[in-house]
Formats: sequence, C-alpha cells, structure tokens
Amino acid sequence: MLIACVAYQNGRKVADIPIADISEFVRRPDALVWVALADPTPEEIEQMAFEFGLHPLAVEDARKGHQRPKIEEYDDSLFAVLHAVESVPGQTDGEFAVGEVDIFAGPNYILTIRPGSMQGFADVRTRCEHEPELLIHGSGYVMYAVMDAVVDRYFPILDDLESSLEQTESRLFDGSSTRSRIEELYDLKRRLMKLKHAVAPLMESVGKLYGGRVPHLCIGTQEYFRDVYDHLTRINGAIENIREMHATAITVNIALISLSESEVTKRLAAWGALITVPTLIAGIYGMNFANMPELHWAHGYPFALALMTIVDAVLFWRFRRAKWV
Amino acid sequence: MLIACVAYQNGRKVADIPIADISEFVRRPDALVWVALADPTPEEIEQMAFEFGLHPLAVEDARKGHQRPKIEEYDDSLFAVLHAVESVPGQTDGEFAVGEVDIFAGPNYILTIRPGSMQGFADVRTRCEHEPELLIHGSGYVMYAVMDAVVDRYFPILDDLESSLEQTESRLFDGSSTRSRIEELYDLKRRLMKLKHAVAPLMESVGKLYGGRVPHLCIGTQEYFRDVYDHLTRINGAIENIREMHATAITVNIALISLSESEVTKRLAAWGALITVPTLIAGIYGMNFANMPELHWAHGYPFALALMTIVDAVLFWRFRRAKWV
Amino acid sequence: MLIACVAYQNGRKVADIPIADISEFVRRPDALVWVALADPTPEEIEQMAFEFGLHPLAVEDARKGHQRPKIEEYDDSLFAVLHAVESVPGQTDGEFAVGEVDIFAGPNYILTIRPGSMQGFADVRTRCEHEPELLIHGSGYVMYAVMDAVVDRYFPILDDLESSLEQTESRLFDGSSTRSRIEELYDLKRRLMKLKHAVAPLMESVGKLYGGRVPHLCIGTQEYFRDVYDHLTRINGAIENIREMHATAITVNIALISLSESEVTKRLAAWGALITVPTLIAGIYGMNFANMPELHWAHGYPFALALMTIVDAVLFWRFRRAKWV
Amino acid sequence: MLIACVAYQNGRKVADIPIADISEFVRRPDALVWVALADPTPEEIEQMAFEFGLHPLAVEDARKGHQRPKIEEYDDSLFAVLHAVESVPGQTDGEFAVGEVDIFAGPNYILTIRPGSMQGFADVRTRCEHEPELLIHGSGYVMYAVMDAVVDRYFPILDDLESSLEQTESRLFDGSSTRSRIEELYDLKRRLMKLKHAVAPLMESVGKLYGGRVPHLCIGTQEYFRDVYDHLTRINGAIENIREMHATAITVNIALISLSESEVTKRLAAWGALITVPTLIAGIYGMNFANMPELHWAHGYPFALALMTIVDAVLFWRFRRAKWV
Amino acid sequence: MLIACVAYQNGRKVADIPIADISEFVRRPDALVWVALADPTPEEIEQMAFEFGLHPLAVEDARKGHQRPKIEEYDDSLFAVLHAVESVPGQTDGEFAVGEVDIFAGPNYILTIRPGSMQGFADVRTRCEHEPELLIHGSGYVMYAVMDAVVDRYFPILDDLESSLEQTESRLFDGSSTRSRIEELYDLKRRLMKLKHAVAPLMESVGKLYGGRVPHLCIGTQEYFRDVYDHLTRINGAIENIREMHATAITVNIALISLSESEVTKRLAAWGALITVPTLIAGIYGMNFANMPELHWAHGYPFALALMTIVDAVLFWRFRRAKWV
Repeated sequence: MLIACVAYQNGRKVADIPIADISEFVRRPDALVWVALADPTPEEIEQMAFEFGLHPLAVEDARKGHQRPKIEEYDDSLFAVLHAVESVPGQTDGEFAVGEVDIFAGPNYILTIRPGSMQGFADVRTRCEHEPELLIHGSGYVMYAVMDAVVDRYFPILDDLESSLEQTESRLFDGSSTRSRIEELYDLKRRLMKLKHAVAPLMESVGKLYGGRVPHLCIGTQEYFRDVYDHLTRINGAIENIREMHATAITVNIALISLSESEVTKRLAAWGALITVPTLIAGIYGMNFANMPELHWAHGYPFALALMTIVDAVLFWRFRRAKWV
Repeated sequence: MLIACVAYQNGRKVADIPIADISEFVRRPDALVWVALADPTPEEIEQMAFEFGLHPLAVEDARKGHQRPKIEEYDDSLFAVLHAVESVPGQTDGEFAVGEVDIFAGPNYILTIRPGSMQGFADVRTRCEHEPELLIHGSGYVMYAVMDAVVDRYFPILDDLESSLEQTESRLFDGSSTRSRIEELYDLKRRLMKLKHAVAPLMESVGKLYGGRVPHLCIGTQEYFRDVYDHLTRINGAIENIREMHATAITVNIALISLSESEVTKRLAAWGALITVPTLIAGIYGMNFANMPELHWAHGYPFALALMTIVDAVLFWRFRRAKWV
Repeated sequence: MLIACVAYQNGRKVADIPIADISEFVRRPDALVWVALADPTPEEIEQMAFEFGLHPLAVEDARKGHQRPKIEEYDDSLFAVLHAVESVPGQTDGEFAVGEVDIFAGPNYILTIRPGSMQGFADVRTRCEHEPELLIHGSGYVMYAVMDAVVDRYFPILDDLESSLEQTESRLFDGSSTRSRIEELYDLKRRLMKLKHAVAPLMESVGKLYGGRVPHLCIGTQEYFRDVYDHLTRINGAIENIREMHATAITVNIALISLSESEVTKRLAAWGALITVPTLIAGIYGMNFANMPELHWAHGYPFALALMTIVDAVLFWRFRRAKWV
Repeated sequence: MLIACVAYQNGRKVADIPIADISEFVRRPDALVWVALADPTPEEIEQMAFEFGLHPLAVEDARKGHQRPKIEEYDDSLFAVLHAVESVPGQTDGEFAVGEVDIFAGPNYILTIRPGSMQGFADVRTRCEHEPELLIHGSGYVMYAVMDAVVDRYFPILDDLESSLEQTESRLFDGSSTRSRIEELYDLKRRLMKLKHAVAPLMESVGKLYGGRVPHLCIGTQEYFRDVYDHLTRINGAIENIREMHATAITVNIALISLSESEVTKRLAAWGALITVPTLIAGIYGMNFANMPELHWAHGYPFALALMTIVDAVLFWRFRRAKWV
Repeated sequence: MLIACVAYQNGRKVADIPIADISEFVRRPDALVWVALADPTPEEIEQMAFEFGLHPLAVEDARKGHQRPKIEEYDDSLFAVLHAVESVPGQTDGEFAVGEVDIFAGPNYILTIRPGSMQGFADVRTRCEHEPELLIHGSGYVMYAVMDAVVDRYFPILDDLESSLEQTESRLFDGSSTRSRIEELYDLKRRLMKLKHAVAPLMESVGKLYGGRVPHLCIGTQEYFRDVYDHLTRINGAIENIREMHATAITVNIALISLSESEVTKRLAAWGALITVPTLIAGIYGMNFANMPELHWAHGYPFALALMTIVDAVLFWRFRRAKWV
C-alpha cells in the first residue's frame, strides 16, 4: 500500500507525485524522492525496483522478509533492514512484537517499506519537512531520521525489561521463589534476546557509516549516524548488563531454593521430634511389666501427659531458639 | 559416478562432452566446463585432477573426506568444502545427516563432488541454464549458485531446532521435568553443535570472498557471495540465540527440579504428620495406667477415633491452606 | 546554575567575566575560557551553546542526560560524558550514587556541566591556577585535570567493593551461609556492574586520546591521558577480578548449602534413630504374649529403661564418632 | 643419541656424514643437512649449536624442555617446539603421554630433537627420500613433513576423546549416574585440556607461516603449511565441540542426580507409608479401652490383619500408578 | 635505601659512584649507570628524578605504588612496573606475597626500585658483570635481565598452584568432599587470580617490545624480550588451564555432594526400615484382641523376636545387595 510519494527540491517539498514520474524526478540534480510503502504487494515492490533501479538481491530480501538487521552497500546506494519493536497493546506482561523496516537509499531517493510493522514514519516526514536546512543533506539525512525513529522506539522496551528485572529481583528475596518466579526469569531472558537480536547486528552495521571510509551517501551526515550508533551502544550495554544480572539472579534463585529446602527439612524434623518423642513416652507406659510403679500412682496418667507436654515444650523452646520452627 | 559433464560458451550450453575432452575445452576463452560427480571412485578423482590440473593437497582432501567447511585458494583456483545437511527421511525427532560437498573452481571450470551426500544440484544447473545473463559471469557464479543451494538447506534444519526448543520450553513449565525432558535438551544441544559445525567455519571463509582483496574468480560476483555470507550470519545468529536460551533452559530445569523436590518433601511431611499424630493418640490410650478415666467411658473408643479424625482434619485443612497437600 | 566563568591568558587567570563576553574572549589567541555549570536550566545550556558555538547533537545529549560515558569529536572540539560516583552520605552498605559530568572542550574554551552530580571541581580549578606552567597547555590539560578528578573518585568505591567481597568470603566459610549472605552477594554484583558501567566505556574512549592519531586538543597532553587510561585499566582489571571471584563465591555458596543440607540430614537421622530405637524396645515389651519372662522380673521395668538408655548411649557414641551429631 | 645425520643435494641423498662435517656441508649451495637426535646429552646439543650456529636462546629452550608449542624466527632460521602425543601402550582408559619435538630449521639444514618422545620420524625421512621433487624445496619442506607427522598423530587421540564422550553420554541416560561417571567426565576434561594445550598454541604459530609476510624458509611451501594449519583448525574445532558438549553433559548429570534424588525420596516415602499406616492400625487396636467391640469379635485379629493388608494394597496400587514404587 | 650505584663503560664496570655524579656519567657516550634502590624514601626518589631527569607522571607512579604491571614509553626512556612474587617463608599453604618492582630505563641508565619487595637483584648484576659482551647492549639488556629474573620467580608459584589443584583433584574422588575441600578450591582460585593479575598485563606490555615498531632501547635486544614474552605466555596458558580445570572441579564437587546426599538418604532410609518394620510387628502383638492364638503359644514371644530378626535380616540382605547400606 502506498503511503506517500513526495518529491523535494533543495530540502523543500515540491509535490506529491505519481509513481510513474519517479524515474524522471530521480534524474534531476538536487532532487529527492521519498516514497513510503506499507505491507506492499509483490507488484508494488516490482514497480519500485523498476522506477529506482534497485538491485535484484536487495529486492529479493525485501520481498522475502525475515532478514536480520543489516546495512548493505550496492554501488552508490544503500539497503538497510531494521527491526521495529512495538509493545503489544492490551498486553501488560512486557511482551512486544518485532516488525521489519526496509530502507532503500540512493543519491536522489529514499524508499521505506514496512511489511508487518504497525507504526509509520509520518511524524519523521513532518519533522524533516520543517527543517529544510537539514533535509537539504539529502537521502543520507532522511535515512538517519528514519533509523533514529526506529531506534528511539527501543528505549521503552528496554525500560520494560529493566523494570521486569528489578521486580523479579525484589520478589526473589521476599521468599517467594516459586515456580512463577522461574517462569518470569525465563520469559525475561527470551524478551531480552529478542531485543538483542534487533540491536546487536544493527549496531555493527551502523558502525561502518561514520569514521574512516563511509558510503558516499553518508559523507555529510556522519555525525548523525555516530549519534544513532551511540544510542545503539547504550542499549546494547544495558542489554549486556541485564543479561549478566539475569544470570546472577538465576544462580541466586537456585541457591535460595536449596536454602529454603534446607530450612523446610529442619522445620519438618523439628515437628517430627515433637510427635515422636511423646510417642516414645506413651510406648514406655504401654509396656506390660508386672511391676511398673507409675502405672499405679493415683495421678500416673496426668503425670504421663504432663511429662509429654513438658518434654515437647522444652524441645519447642530449643527449636525456636535455633530458628528451626 | 559421473552425473554430468557439460561445456558452456558465453553462458549457453554447448554440449555434454566426454571426460577426455575436458582439458581441451578448458583452454578455450569464455568457455566453462561444469562437471558433477557423486560418490566418485579414487580413479575418477584422479582423472579429474589430471584433466583440470587440480592441486595435489586439495585432491587429497577431497579423497580423504571428513574435512571441516573451508574455502582455500590455490593460485587462480578455489577449493571449497561444504557440509550438506539433510533431514533423515522417516525420522521424526529432528535428527539430520551431514554429508560433504567439494567444489573445485578454476577460471574456466567448476567441479562438484558429493561423497555421501544424497541431494544433488540438478535444479541448480537447470536454473543456471535458464539465466545465461548470469551464467556468463562464469565459474564464480556457478560456485555461488551451488553454495547458495547448500546453505538454503540449512534453514529447515534450523527451523526444526527452533521448534524443538519451543516445545521443550513449553513442556518445562507444565511440570513434566522428567528424565526425558533432560534427554531432549541434551539431544537438542548435540544437533545444534552439528549445525554450528557446518555453518561457523563456512561463514568465516565466505567472508573473504567479498570486500577488500578477493580471489580473482569472485571479482564480478562479490555481491552474490555477500548474500551467502548474510544467510550464514543469519543462521549463525539464530544458532547463538538457541544456544543461549538452551543454557538458560537447562539451568531453569535444574531450578525446577530442586523446587519440585522441595514441594514433594513438604507433601510427604504433611502426609507423614497425618499418620504419626493419630499414632501418638493411639499410643497414649495404649498406656497401661491403672487410673485412666477415658478408658472406662462408655464411648471412650469412638471418642478416641473421633479425636484422631478431628486432629487429622484440622491438620489437613492447615496443610491444604499452605498448599502442602 | 553558573558556578564560575573565568578567562585565562597564557596559563594565568585574567578575570571572572560575564557570560556575554565569552564569545569575545574565545576568539583571542592563547586565551582560555573555563566555565562551570551545575544543574543548568535549558536556557543556560542554550546560552552556552550560542556563546561557544557547540554542536547541536552534543548539546542535545547534555540536555537530555542519561548518556553512557563517551568522548566524541566534533571538528576541532571534544564532547565528553563521564559518570561521577559518590558514596551516599549516611549509608553504610557501600551503596553509591552515579551522577553525570559533561565536558565541552574547544581550542580556547572548556565548559563543564554537572547535572545531578553533587561534588564540584573547585579544587581542580584551584590546583590548575597554581600550576600556570601546566595550564598553559590549554583546554586539553584542563580536560585531563577534570577527568582525572572524576576517575580518582572511583577508587574509594572500588575499595568498598573489594572489602565487601572479602567480608562475604570470610563469612561464607564460618558456616553462616544464610539468606542474607546470598542477598549480599547479589547486591555486590549489582554495585559492581554499576561501577563497570561507568568505567568500561570511558576506558575505551580515553584509549583514543593518546598514541597514533589523536584529537588536536590532546596533542601536547597525550601522556596525561595515558595516565588516566592507566588508572581506568587498573580499576577495570580489579572489577574483572572481583567479578570472577564473585562468580566463584556464588558457586561455592551453593556447594556449601548442599553440603550443610547433607550434614543436617545426617544429624536429623541420628536424632531420629535415638528416638525410634527405644520406641521399638517399648513396643516389644508392650506385646501381649502370655509368656514373656522379663515382664515378671522384679526389676524388669528398670531393666527395660536401662536397655533403652544403653542402646541410645552406644548409638550416640557411634554417631558422635562419625561426626553426625 | 644421534639417530641420523645425512646430507642431501638437489633433493637426493648424498651420504651419511660425520657430525664434524656438518658445518662444511651447510655452506654448500643447494645442500641440505638433516640431523635427528633423540634424548640428546647436553654435549650433543652444544655440538649441534656450534656446527649449525644456533641461537643461544633457542638452544637453551631445547636444553631445558617443558616449552609450550611455538615457532620462533631467528634471523633466517626457525625454531619450532611441538608436543608429540602418543597413547600409552597397555593402557585402555584413553590416557596418552605428551613428549616434545624441537625443530631447528635453517636455509640449508634441519635438526630435529626429541627429548622424551617415543616415536621417531624414520618414516618421514623415508617418504621424503622417495620424493626428491618435493625434497628439493629444502628445509621448509622437511619441516612441514615432520610437523605433518606430529599433527597426524593427534587424530587418534581426538577419536579416543570423542568416543569417551559418546560412551559417557550413552551411560548418563541409562540411569547409572554414579560416582564413576563423574570421575570419567573429569578425566575426559583433563585429557581434553592436555590435547588442547598441544594444539592451540601451535595453530596460532603455524598461522604465521602462510599468507602475508612469511619467514624466508616457508616461501615455496606456504600451501603445505596452510594444510597443517587446516588440520590443526579441524582438531581445535573438534576439541571446542567436545568441550561444549562436555560442559552440557556435566550440567545434565547434575540435573539427573537431582532428579534421581527426587525419585528416591518419593520411593522411600511410599515404602514408609506402607509401614507406618499398619503401625497406626496396630496402635489403635492396642488401646486399652474397656469397651472396644472389635477386640471381642471371634475373628477380630484376622480382621485387623486383613485391614492392614487391604489398606497397604490400596496404597501400593496408588503409588504404583503414580510411578512412586 | 641505596643498594648500589655503579657506572659501566662498554659493558665493563668502571666504579661505584656517588649519587651526585650520576648526571655527569649519564651524559658520556657508551656509559651506563645502574642504580638499585630498596624501600626508598620520597627524598631518594626525588633525587633520582632530578639526576636522571625522570618524567613526573612516572615518578608519581613509583612514589604512590599499587600500580598494575605495565611498561610505558616516555620519549626515549621506558618505565616498567612489575609484580614480584615470593612465597611467604614459614607458610606451607602455598600463600605468596606480591611486591612491586619499578624499572626506569633511559639510553644510558637503568634504575630499579623495589618498594616492599624482599628479594633483590644482586645476582642479576653479578651475572651481567660476568658477560660484558651482553652488557654492552646497554640499558635494554639490563632491563631484560631484571625482568627475566622477576618472571623466573613466577614458575615455582605456578608449580605450587598446579600441585594444589592435583591434590584437591585426588582428594575429591576419595570421597572426602567436605567443607575444607571447598575452602581449598576457593583459596586456590584466589591465589590463581593473584598470579594472573601479575602476569596478564605484563604479557600484554612485553608483547610491544619486539616485532614491528619497538621502543628505541629494545632495538638490539628484541629476541630477549620475545623470550620473556614466551615465558609469560607459557605461565598464562598454564593459568588458563588451571582456571578451566578449577571450574570443572567445582562443578564436579557439587555433583559429588548431591550424589553423596542421595546415597546418605538411601542409607538412612534403609536403617529406618530396619527399625520401623519390627516396630510394626511389635505393634501387632501389642493389640488387645481377645482371641490372638500366638499370644498363648508357649514360645510365642521368642517366635515374635525371631520373626523381627528374620524380617530384618532379609531386608538387610536386600539393602546390602542394592548397595544401600
């Protein structure tokens, strides 16, 4: 579905143009054609490939989808795949969906395709159109603006992960190391790996867009790409941090389970003693010896019950002191 | 066994040629001889080595087999070893077989050998013959096409591994952390390492076929090899992801076993109490004191039984509330 | 809030100058304007950006905060973000706060901003003003002096972490592997990661300020930045060391918990035997056989009690010898 | 002990020569002197150092032994240390011995020393003498041949390790996770590290003998050294693979031990219930109430025994259904 | 404290000279002044800094101490910090102390300072004075000689660590996995990290003293520094090896503890059964049924006792066969 197809000249919008005119505008100097597609049909992709003269391998990647984040150089154009993350509305467990954003950028054009990605880039376009002094940098700047928008959406997901970890941490130590705590930890790891999968390969690719030899498109906008790289490094560092704390949390959880098992064993043994010791006393007074003085005492029976109670009380007091019960 | 021996000129098939003519065709400019062998005899390999002038060390590797994936440069020719994976028909546990594919590529020839690899490359040949505008790139393009076919077969194996992990994950938390779950996890790891063994060294080697200085054969087809590299990176990233989740799953499994042990201990202790407490009461009324009023009550016996029942009922209710039984 | 705005000439203080005069002073050769801001308002930052001609991306980072440590080059100026650590007064558990310090350094100016960082750099300024032969090196030297001051504050935090580890170590082996020990270990890890987060990225960035190609500002002061780098390497090495010992400590803790569980089990079983064996004896003499000689002995009852005591004494002696009780 | 001292000219054997003539032959163009020593005395090493003009630091390493594998360049000569592995005859547990092989290679000479290494290189010499067209490459080729022979002996050791792992794997899951299984796993790791110790540093060193700038000696034989490197990479990859599976196996073993402990606990509890429940019934009928109808039934006693049996049968059936006994 | 201050000319000792003359001698060509200080006062360090013209940052490091091992280049001079290890006399648990050795080396001078390091370098000086043909290489050679002496002292410590590991290993499997075994493992790790801390950073620094661009001082003595590097690599490799085996040993220890817990549980359960089963029999014959034939048998009581004994004997035999007792 075509979202927008706009031509710019010297950083200023000229007009919405029909697709068929793209190839003509692209040839003009200082022009910029910026096309946005969402959930495109194969035919739309074919048409774009023809109008912009896109490389067949890049087109195939865009058509097949399920790519990992990457930025590839084809002669004087770039092909970027990004993972767009979006928290699933109506779900509160921090789950998020991962969509794909493909960017084709040439000297005079930029084409963004989002198959299965919910959020668009209308706000990016609006902001760019308000800053003609930046838009004049051309397709490199637009590419930066779109990438920056995608990367900015990683931060709330990261915050979710961090607060999940903190929640699990705080619950770990209030004694509730139950099955659901372990499930939470596993789920946190799964979400973490999903975000890492979006961030790490992209970081590697963006690192080649500034400093040293860079693609021709990025020459005037290196500092902007370094900014994106810096954001990705920050996210990646935070992910690594969560990952390491997560590993410690799981190990600590195992230690806590072992410890609580050990405590339960002691508690059970204490209660067991409180039952078996009076049983022994009862057994003794159940013996059938002809000559057992206590049996004939007037208060023999209350004495035996009292004996049981006192022994248990002493035991209970000692177990309590040792923190076993 | 010779599968095919075909000569091409400018990207178009000329003829099936006898082996003896190979050395003649190879000398013509713009010619390409493409030979495919399956389970070759040592004599066949010797003959090919002679016709194409292959390097003795590469020939020895092809003859001995059991190589790890690699791409080696000998003067102006390349020798590649790939691991071909194929799911074993009739087996449903995700097990797969690993065969070997050897590719000798020179300026005017390409020789593929598959010792112990079931699937052939007839479809690759057919596709190449339908695209003479690509086949004109020569042996570098054919080499790409064969490698691409081998690598494409890794994806279904990877999908199997991913669904194995997901299955094990979902079963982990429904409480069935039994011996077979652990066996599954071990088996998953073994299969994962087998695939990694095929992918990781190849990725490293393919990475040298594009960008910077590349072998002469690959000069016009760098973008294609980058595409193969990209596929391998994707598979490798997925393998690393599974590996990390797998490690977490094993640790989580240990935690779950400990936890369930702890739960079992509590349950057993609860049931133990339900037996030993009435035993104590019975012991008390089995004492032989001369003067025990209850013994002479008309309903002393039912009273004792009722006492046991009530005490157990109270205990049971408390254990249930504490989720011990 | 403006802390200070001072102009220097050839390493000597000229005067406190109003903000509006900055841009004039900056243009003079051999001049140096050194401005310090604490918790600045957005307007103050705007004003500084205007006076010094700071790069918009750097200004945005300073305004938004929550950056990871980094040093970025913008043409002939540098923008550095550092994490300032400070132990929280009144807290004794080694907890520390992390603030941020931003440094903008150009050929003739230095601007330090500390949003949410408690300790200032008045002492650094005083020291610099007493060493005009060093201050003459210009903004590079002042940047070094501020960074050195920030990094020096990491050492007491590191010492805290090391003594925390040692304390936990020594307590681990005196038998008190309790829940609080595990909490301590987890907390230590959390603090360790917080410090690592401040140190590791900074180390990486400072490593680019000496040797090989360095930013223009640092040319005369490379050895000083190497000194900062050396300090950071030392801290980082110590962090890695603590991290590894910490991992070993956690594993050892789990082993100790298992071991102590095993010891408790043995102890409980021993005490259990001391109760159940006499119960068996009592049971035997509670049997109702018509013909049980002991029952009719004059001292049958004391005999039975003595038997119980002797058997228990023997058992106790053997358990004690086996270190079970 | 001198094994052999032979002079070659243009790839063909000239004569066995006395040690004193070495220095003369070495000076001739196209000559090659190949000396083999086994368990040499310090005097023999001294003599060789004098005849060949070996570097004092290399000579000291050869004399002291206990080096790690390495290849060092001294001007135009090379000094290589390799670890030779040999399975200990008469031992069946996969244990192997590690000896040392020192190679001094100069433009016209090669000297191999094997202190404490059992197997010699007579076969290597024989093979080289049968291939004068290869031997003409000089000392570089001989060095390759000796290294290739040493590395080829790693493969059977690696096979032993792989089959040890497989054996342990298969036994892990047939339930016999006993002490000896853990000992086997530890021993496997120890042997693995011993082999890794021989392979990894050598691989690193051999990697510098081909591609890019290589020592003068290796210029015509680069492809051969790449072949050795390839073998080492293969072994190293397999070692890494075993290492990772080994780590998984240990973790899995711990999980299995926990699981079996949990199963044992359940089994014991079940049997305990089968004993304590009839004990409770016996206790009830041991009570001394005056009015207990069952006691006066004609078949009261068989009734009680039957009650015990029936209750136990029901319990047994339920435990069996739950797979507890 | 000044240990020695000697001037050399062309590799031969000229005279012990007073400190005040140092600056004069240092200016002569082919001269070498070698000064050794132990536990110097700040004044002595000041004096040396003045006489040799040492860099302030290096002097400050020497004065403050607690540096990590490093080698820094200041113009044409080098500053090296090494960790000197020495086993503590009178202690047999393998504990060792770490002291510091600072080396200042310039074109014509060498200054060694050992604050808090017990062993001196008198033997190094003696050896150097006996080899004027090596000492003529100047300060680079002396620096090598001192470093070599420091590094050689690492080997006995490493041997201690290796024999500690072996001892712990052998004790692990003879069943004594007690608390002290875990303490030993923790202590071994601590000592290992201490040695690694001395070795790893030094190795990194020494690696820059040979091959490629090296400091001017080391140009004629590169092969000697490569020798030191080789020693350090060997130690580092051994440390890594111990580290990995140590990790395996801890995991194996946990497995053994779990296993022995499981064995203890079985043993206890077996003994428990041997007590509770006769208790059940006693309970049965303690029932008060009017009509229990056995009670009236002449040998009813011995029969009951025999029954208990036989049942226990059968149980014991079965438990023994199952290796439970």
